[in-house]
Amino acid sequence: MSEIKDNFSNYIDNLQNEICSAMEEIDGSARFREDDWDRDGGGGGGGRTRVIEKGGVFEKGGVNISRVWGELPDPIKKHFDVDQGSFWAGGLSLVLHPKNPMVPTVHANYRYFELYDDESMTESTDGWFGGGADLTPYYLFEEDAKHFHKTLKSACDRHHPDYYPEFKKECDNYFYNSHRGEARGVGGLFFDYLRATEETSLDDWYEFTTDIGRAFVESYRPIAEQRKEMPYTPGQRYWQEIRRGRYVEFNLVHDRGTLFGLKTGGRIESILMSLPPEVRWDYDHHPEEGTDEAKLLDTLKNPREWIS
Amino acid sequence: MSEIKDNFSNYIDNLQNEICSAMEEIDGSARFREDDWDRDGGGGGGGRTRVIEKGGVFEKGGVNISRVWGELPDPIKKHFDVDQGSFWAGGLSLVLHPKNPMVPTVHANYRYFELYDDESMTESTDGWFGGGADLTPYYLFEEDAKHFHKTLKSACDRHHPDYYPEFKKECDNYFYNSHRGEARGVGGLFFDYLRATEETSLDDWYEFTTDIGRAFVESYRPIAEQRKEMPYTPGQRYWQEIRRGRYVEFNLVHDRGTLFGLKTGGRIESILMSLPPEVRWDYDHHPEEGTDEAKLLDTLKNPREWIS
Repeated sequence: MSEIKDNFSNYIDNLQNEICSAMEEIDGSARFREDDWDRDGGGGGGGRTRVIEKGGVFEKGGVNISRVWGELPDPIKKHFDVDQGSFWAGGLSLVLHPKNPMVPTVHANYRYFELYDDESMTESTDGWFGGGADLTPYYLFEEDAKHFHKTLKSACDRHHPDYYPEFKKECDNYFYNSHRGEARGVGGLFFDYLRATEETSLDDWYEFTTDIGRAFVESYRPIAEQRKEMPYTPGQRYWQEIRRGRYVEFNLVHDRGTLFGLKTGGRIESILMSLPPEVRWDYDHHPEEGTDEAKLLDTLKNPREWIS
Repeated sequence: MSEIKDNFSNYIDNLQNEICSAMEEIDGSARFREDDWDRDGGGGGGGRTRVIEKGGVFEKGGVNISRVWGELPDPIKKHFDVDQGSFWAGGLSLVLHPKNPMVPTVHANYRYFELYDDESMTESTDGWFGGGADLTPYYLFEEDAKHFHKTLKSACDRHHPDYYPEFKKECDNYFYNSHRGEARGVGGLFFDYLRATEETSLDDWYEFTTDIGRAFVESYRPIAEQRKEMPYTPGQRYWQEIRRGRYVEFNLVHDRGTLFGLKTGGRIESILMSLPPEVRWDYDHHPEEGTDEAKLLDTLKNPREWIS
């Protein structure tokens, strides 16, 4: 399995470069700045955080990779009911918050874990892939949601016809603000614990996950390009800031990755990079019936199939 | 014990009126608007949410009371390891977010719980008080922190000399953003599970808790009055919005009351009333050394004794 680890490690390196270049092209003015960091505490590794702020299109965004390893943290030992062991974890995680409320926020993540019985990390005892991508519009353009889903479905279909419906559904279930009774956005894909089985090897999951990652730019670029010059009003911006509050609520209350990172001493600034820049909470805010804002809410309360 | 329940129920009614009047006087222009709500689901009760928004002093704030009862929710049954039972819970909860960054945010809460073995709710098997008050400045005026603590200490000292040091320490421990290694603010009081013991009856705790509640206006009003006309710069407002982000992080990641409310179907808008109106997250924001902003951070990283 260590070949998978090395290949995935190279893959996220290259994917970070590819995505950052494409996003800089979309943005047209700002560039990503880079923060390399080393992991503190038991074990090793670190990451490369790339941040774009106050750009032409992106008000705030990050495309981060990390590779960390060492003794299993206590919460993971507990989760797997083991007394000792070590791990390797690597992944790419991105969030882009556009300034213009007509351009949707996008999030994606591709990750690989390996576990070992001992500290030598030579022979892994378990390994799995996880990840996905999801879109969070402030105003709903149905063709955007369709394009996003269609691109991801094509990547899925190259591997198995069941993957898109299954992982689309998992995405709707996962990115859900249960305390609001509404989805975070219009979904996409979410998958986790993709392990070797009799039908599907870990190499197959590697091919699948990396294929999904390569589809990211194509899933998002045309949407951002088409919406980024659209005019918008202060009222539409206000609505975007209200909705960003829901994004914060999801990430801080429900997102397993965020909470796990905060509670196991991950790098705070890289984790909370996902939070939007300017956010607003009004008491009991409701859009008026029949407005575009109400139409979006209705879609979030009743997740749809985007490809028929 | 049902006399305590009735008395406390009247007490929070009156206290809500008293605090709202005092805060409207400070504000000078906005008035609280009122939302009465009924509890959904098993049991009964409801609350009276009072909200002030876009005022002269208060950008957003709420002073809420609620009285709810019914069958114990599953998480509480689990917590107390019981199969059945019912509860009564009543309390007042307030958060005030001033517009001017020189005026600190304040939060306070006073609550009473009773448990019963059965659904008739006649004879309670357990009862306890909880609550406290804490101050969150954006710029540190030491005399404000001292006044706030001194007022609360006087109220504590009328009951027992150990209460202030004990509940001050619990407040520092509770309102702590462990993922940031910093306190939410300059503290105050925090107490919970104040039950009848050999030395202290539930009536004594009633007197204590209601005394702390009556001290609220005096603990906060002079601070707000003295700071509300102070000039401030856009840069100071920016810092306030960054710090408000930390307030959101605490409430959504760590605050037991908020998370419990969100996960047991409390009234979302009354619970999330505590979130500030305009909030900002920058990547890796750090104040420059030697500035007022850095001085505040230093105080939050090293909680102090405010009364020597």
